[in-house]
Parts: sequence; structure tokens; C-alpha cells
Amino acid sequence: MRPQDLIRKKRDAQEMPVADIKEFLAGVSDGTLPDYQAAALLMAIYFQGMTDSELSAWTEAMLRSGRVLDLSSIPGVKVDKHSTGGVGDKISLCLAPLVAACGVPVPMISGRGLGHTGGTLDKLEAIPGFSTNMDVPGFIEAVEQVNMALIGQTDDLAPADRKLYALRDVTSTVESIPLISSSIMSKKLAEGMDALVLDVKVGNGAFMKDLATARELAETMQGIGRRAGKRVTAFLSDMNQPLGREVGNANETREAIEILRGEGPGDLLDLTLQLGAEMLVLGQITPDQDEATQRIRDARGSGAGLQKLAQCIERQGGDPRVCDDVSLLPAAAETRTVKAARAGVLASVATEQVGIAGMILGAGRKHVTDPVDHSVGLTICARLGDELSEGDPLVVLHHNDAAKADAAEAALEGVFTVADDCEPPPPLIYEVLR
Amino acid sequence: MRPQDLIRKKRDAQEMPVADIKEFLAGVSDGTLPDYQAAALLMAIYFQGMTDSELSAWTEAMLRSGRVLDLSSIPGVKVDKHSTGGVGDKISLCLAPLVAACGVPVPMISGRGLGHTGGTLDKLEAIPGFSTNMDVPGFIEAVEQVNMALIGQTDDLAPADRKLYALRDVTSTVESIPLISSSIMSKKLAEGMDALVLDVKVGNGAFMKDLATARELAETMQGIGRRAGKRVTAFLSDMNQPLGREVGNANETREAIEILRGEGPGDLLDLTLQLGAEMLVLGQITPDQDEATQRIRDARGSGAGLQKLAQCIERQGGDPRVCDDVSLLPAAAETRTVKAARAGVLASVATEQVGIAGMILGAGRKHVTDPVDHSVGLTICARLGDELSEGDPLVVLHHNDAAKADAAEAALEGVFTVADDCEPPPPLIYEVLR
Repeated sequence: MRPQDLIRKKRDAQEMPVADIKEFLAGVSDGTLPDYQAAALLMAIYFQGMTDSELSAWTEAMLRSGRVLDLSSIPGVKVDKHSTGGVGDKISLCLAPLVAACGVPVPMISGRGLGHTGGTLDKLEAIPGFSTNMDVPGFIEAVEQVNMALIGQTDDLAPADRKLYALRDVTSTVESIPLISSSIMSKKLAEGMDALVLDVKVGNGAFMKDLATARELAETMQGIGRRAGKRVTAFLSDMNQPLGREVGNANETREAIEILRGEGPGDLLDLTLQLGAEMLVLGQITPDQDEATQRIRDARGSGAGLQKLAQCIERQGGDPRVCDDVSLLPAAAETRTVKAARAGVLASVATEQVGIAGMILGAGRKHVTDPVDHSVGLTICARLGDELSEGDPLVVLHHNDAAKADAAEAALEGVFTVADDCEPPPPLIYEVLR
Repeated sequence: MRPQDLIRKKRDAQEMPVADIKEFLAGVSDGTLPDYQAAALLMAIYFQGMTDSELSAWTEAMLRSGRVLDLSSIPGVKVDKHSTGGVGDKISLCLAPLVAACGVPVPMISGRGLGHTGGTLDKLEAIPGFSTNMDVPGFIEAVEQVNMALIGQTDDLAPADRKLYALRDVTSTVESIPLISSSIMSKKLAEGMDALVLDVKVGNGAFMKDLATARELAETMQGIGRRAGKRVTAFLSDMNQPLGREVGNANETREAIEILRGEGPGDLLDLTLQLGAEMLVLGQITPDQDEATQRIRDARGSGAGLQKLAQCIERQGGDPRVCDDVSLLPAAAETRTVKAARAGVLASVATEQVGIAGMILGAGRKHVTDPVDHSVGLTICARLGDELSEGDPLVVLHHNDAAKADAAEAALEGVFTVADDCEPPPPLIYEVLR
């Protein structure tokens, strides 16, 4: 195969042969294919999309570019959850322990925050001593012993995806549904899970701004999973305001612990219950959705979920006492409150900008190599539709640097719209695709 | 400017700012812009096209990437002709001397053949001693003294175009009207001409297979020229059969000389007269098309054109006696005739394949680095619509190698279709866009 002939096929919307896709991606992996040909093909895919069979071949080739974990030594149906990313999305931290406590092994490989979105690894690292680096035998052993492990991606999982992602980032070919889908699914399939719950975020704080695009992404990922023999359920959930009240690493870890302690905000709890119940059903604990929900509630009520998190933290080198005493988590030195300038109802939140304000404080990163400050963040004091009086708090900034707080405050200018009235707040979950 | 932001703009069909285009192409020229970003932008342009102002900025940036010739020391309006390429198109060799003999300076920078198309440089090099390498002062001096010069592109003319073309070739982004147009026009504008006649070939032996696409290309190039302050006339001329009777380097040079000697085939003469008359009008010799045509006829009838060619050949190191004795041109050792298998009319010629047969004989090249044999070629014995008897010659192969002749003969299989009747032959010229 001449790479330019494969590029031409895709450019002209002809089907790319499976063998050619394999050869192309093998060249990406081993560095024999010039980046300029990969870039041209990525842009052609951006415009022309991929057929189902191309998409499966592409995903499979990326998956096979590295190690594929074999979790068959662990009894039970291994179920993971993946979120497409948003602001305040700390759900993995309370969801995984509850599901694991109910008997489903959860092998979870997560990412770091970038831009306006947070990442599970950064939130975990707010826990003193917690390590998200683990080799593959250690990861498998942890899932065997604790029923869950939360780690970062290892270099040998889907290395072709890492190379392609770096190339997509500098060639403006990130926003392509087949490329996003194959990137996510190749990593998830490499991780060795049997079933997957996808939480596709929709709204002004998500990558997918509208329901139709989010649905297309969800269905594309489901199709890849189905053709690979995995059960995949996709939730389309709202991201037109932060999830829960807290944004920032220690802040979010604390809020997730609160959920496990029987406290925490309603939206975060609701989504945890629904995603958790689905994971129990996929994990074949029970076929009944209501019973599954009750089991998650019980694991929360009994403290089994909190205990599971403590066990996981201890196994991964962290201080499990944070589960009983959240004051052991790092905290910012100062706070500053942004208040409502008028009375009314909270009509909209420019959610992406809330994430950017967090990034400015130091909770997130602009570039992958930037350090993060685990102690800083934002507490969101109002939800869409809330009635507010003039001077009511909208958001509390937790900061260590007045200049950064000034910049974050400036970034929040106009982000919370208080009006005379507003649309009914969006539902927490738009659709569930099974 | 971040290159990925410019790529994104084009990808999303937003206007690329002129300053960013300049910076991008400066990066292509000096090698600081990674090829993968150039490749991604080229593919985005393939899909989204370019606006007029983008196209002019792009062409200008390519033009300014190297030396721009200043021919202002030469009196008169300098007029060049450019053909988009076809089979048997030797028109520069008879056209330039006639126009130059009529007083219009013709600074002509030409290319080499590739694939099924021939190139003027290869045809000139069939003349013993003829050199197409000349430095810029030498070129200007030759145009001053002889009123014409025929040379190859120098390394310092539009080097960004050369780099981009190499990249387009391996990323399947050649077939883009804005990219083709800016590539051609940047080189022509760098050459310092004042006005240009474009011969855009249309048909099964041309790059543009249909009239609509050819017209779009012609209008795009005209627009670039007009906005750069140059007068450009575009001819859309037929390439559904070879131009003239001869294909191959010495063959075509001989046929061009025959035209200048008052002989030669009618189609080649007609096109020469029309393009030449247009060049005289653009060159402000006369505003009257009929008078211009008569002047070209006179230059042919008087032998002034032939004399001009001899003068040019001598100036460029070649043997001018070829003008009087074409037997001084190289000739192949053997001939072989392909005959009509049945009686009828010649209904179609797969013209590109005729060019490929010539390439197989050694007259052209598959790769830019392949050598050519100037002596080999094809003589086409029938034109579309000609009545043929069984056994009438269709084409004579001039070859030096029986194996190559076998392969060329095989490539000609089915190329000439003899049928009971046929469509009226296409016109020589479809349209003239002034």
C-alpha cells in the first residue's frame, strides 16, 4: 500500500481496506510512516468520517499497537465507566467504590485535566501519598484484591493512539467523532474491561454542545464496543452547569467522600446512583434496575463504599484517614466570594468558563506539562433556576495567590446570569442508550 | 499565529487572514513549519477551497518566497503562454518564435514531462547541444537580444511552491483547483511577465476531464492574475486526442519546426495562430485580432518565425541547422505500425493512454528522476472522425527496444476505437475567456 493511495481513498469517500488501515497505523506506531501523511489522512477523516468497518479496524489497530490487558484471572464481569469530561465531574471517585463494594470489579484507567476540564488522576493525587502509577501486574493484583484500582494510562496501552492524539492536537483534527470514538474505545478495550458505561456530557461545559452530536458520539462508541463483543451503555447527561458544588482537585475529592458519607449534593448523588445501578446490571449482579439502585444506596448507607475507597487509597499508597477526616486534604489559604449583583433567578452558567477560572487559580492546566495546585478551586453556591437576592454568594474562590484570584474573578465576569425568569433547568440525564 | 489555529479556520471555512497565510508559507519556505501542519492545511484547502483574497495572498506569499524577476529593462509588454499539459502539446516551440518574431518579448519558463504528459524542456533538449539551464542575468539578456528564451525553472523561483508540490504529491492533495492555480500563477508571476495566455486543456488526455472544471481552473487563474495587475486570457482547448500528429521529444520538435516551415498539421497550426494572435494583442502590437492573426501568418510565411527559432537555439547552445535539416534531430532505430482491425470511423482515442505508451517507449518519465530517450515516440495517423479501412495505420511506434515497443503496443490495446459512426469531433477550442 502506498500511503497516498489510502489518503486518496478516504479523501474520495471510498472504503479503506482493513489491511491498509492496519499497515498505516503500524507505520504510525513504529514511526516509519511520515507524520505528514498521517496528518493528511486525519484531516480527510475529519471531513469524510469513517464507516463502521473502517472504524472497528482503526480501533482494533490502535488497540493492538500496544499491550492488551488480560483480566480473565479476575472473577466476575469487569465494568468501567468513562466520562467525556466536564466541570466538577468527580463521579469516578464516589462511583467506583460503591460499585466495587457491590461486587463488580472496576479496572479504571483515567486521565489528567486539560483546559477547562478536570481529570480523575489529579483529584486522586490531592490525597496525600496517593499514587496513580502502577505497573500492569500491580494493577491486576489491586483489582483482584480490592475489586477496584484507579490508575493513569501506561505507556504501553494503545501507543498509536497517543501518537495520533499528539498529531491531532497540532493539526486541528481533534473534533472528529470517529477519531474521538476510536481513541477512547481503543484505550478502554486495551484495559481489558468486559462492559462499559459511558457518560457523554452535553452542554456549554462539555466538548459536545448539543444533544444530536453527543448522541452521535455515544452511538459511535457503542457501535465500536458492540462489534468488539462488549456491552456498552451510554448516558447523555447535562453539563450546562458544574456537576455538584465543587470544582478543583481537593475540593472535588472532598465532595466525593461526602457522597460516600451520606451527604453531598443531590445531582451528584443522582448521577452516581444511576450510573452505579447500570454498572451493577452490566456486571450481572442483578438484572433488575431498581434492585441495582437499592444495592448502591445500601453500599452508601452502610459505609461499605467509603470503606472500599479507604481500602483503595491505602492499597495505592495514600492516607486512608482522609475518608474520616477531609481536613487532611490540602486546602487553599484564602477565600473570596463572588456575589449576585441583583436579585432574580440563576438563568445560565457559562460552564466552560467556570472550568477556565479553576485553571487560572491553578487547579487545572493549559499545557499537559503544567503543574497543578491540588488545594485551590471553586465552590458553586447556586444552581440553575435558584432564586437569588442581591448579594447572595454565587461562587467562592479558594486560592493561594491574590493575583490569580483577581484573574479568575475577571474570568468569571458575566459567567453567572441572574435574570427575572428563566427556562426550566435542564434534566440531569437526557437519555440512556443501551 | 499558531499553525493549528490557521488550519482550524480553513477547516471550518472561515477566512484565513493574509498575515497568517504569509507567516505559514514563510514557515514552509524556511523549514520551520512542520510538514504535518502543512499537510493538514493542504487537505483542509482541498475540501474547503480558498476565497479570492486567500488565493491572492497564498500566491503572493509563494511568489515572494523566492526571487521575482524584474524584466523592466526589456522594452515592450512581456507575454508568456502556459499550458496545463496534454499529449502532443508542442505548441510553445512554434508559438514562441512566431510571437517573438512579431515583436513581443517572450520570457518562457517551462517544465519537464511527467506521467502521460510531455514537457517543453525535454522537447528542446532533443535539439543537439540545446541548454535549458541559464542563470537569471543570462535569461534576461537572451530575452533582450533574441526577444525570447526558453528555460527551466531555477531553484530560486517560488521555492515554497516546489516544497508544497512535493508534499501535495505524497498526501493526495494535488487535485485542488486553488492549489493548482496558485502553484502555476506563483511561478508565472515570479517570472516577471506582464500578460499571460493560458491554454487549459480539457478532455481525456488532460488533467481536467470536463469543461466545467477546466473553466473553474481557468477563471481561478485569471482572477489571481487580474488581482496581481496582469492581463490573462484563457483558452479552453480540446485534449480528447493528441495535438498534431507527433508524440515524443524529437518527433514533436520536428513537427513544430514543420509548422514554422509552412507545413504541419491543421489543428496545431490553428491553435498556434489563435494563441499567437492573442499574445500579440496582449503584447499591444495591435488591438485587432484579425490583424494579429495575419501578422502571425506573415511571420510564418516569411520564415521570420523559423529564423527566430534558429536564433534562439544558437543563443542557447544548440545546433540551429536543425531548422533547415530536421534529420539532425535524433531518430529512433525502428518503427512498428499499429493498424485498424476493422473499417469504420475513428470514434475515440483514450488520449492519456497514448501518452503512457510514449512514456513506456522512453519518451516520458514515471518518476521525476527517470531519464528520457529523445528519439522515441509515436506518430498518430488518424484523427477523430476519420474514415478508416481495415488495415489502415492508426499509429506508428518509433522505438529503440523491441521489448518496450511490445509493452507500448500492449498499452495501446483498445485505445483507438473504430466504430460504424461517431459523435461529431470536438472543436479545437471550446471557449476563450478574456
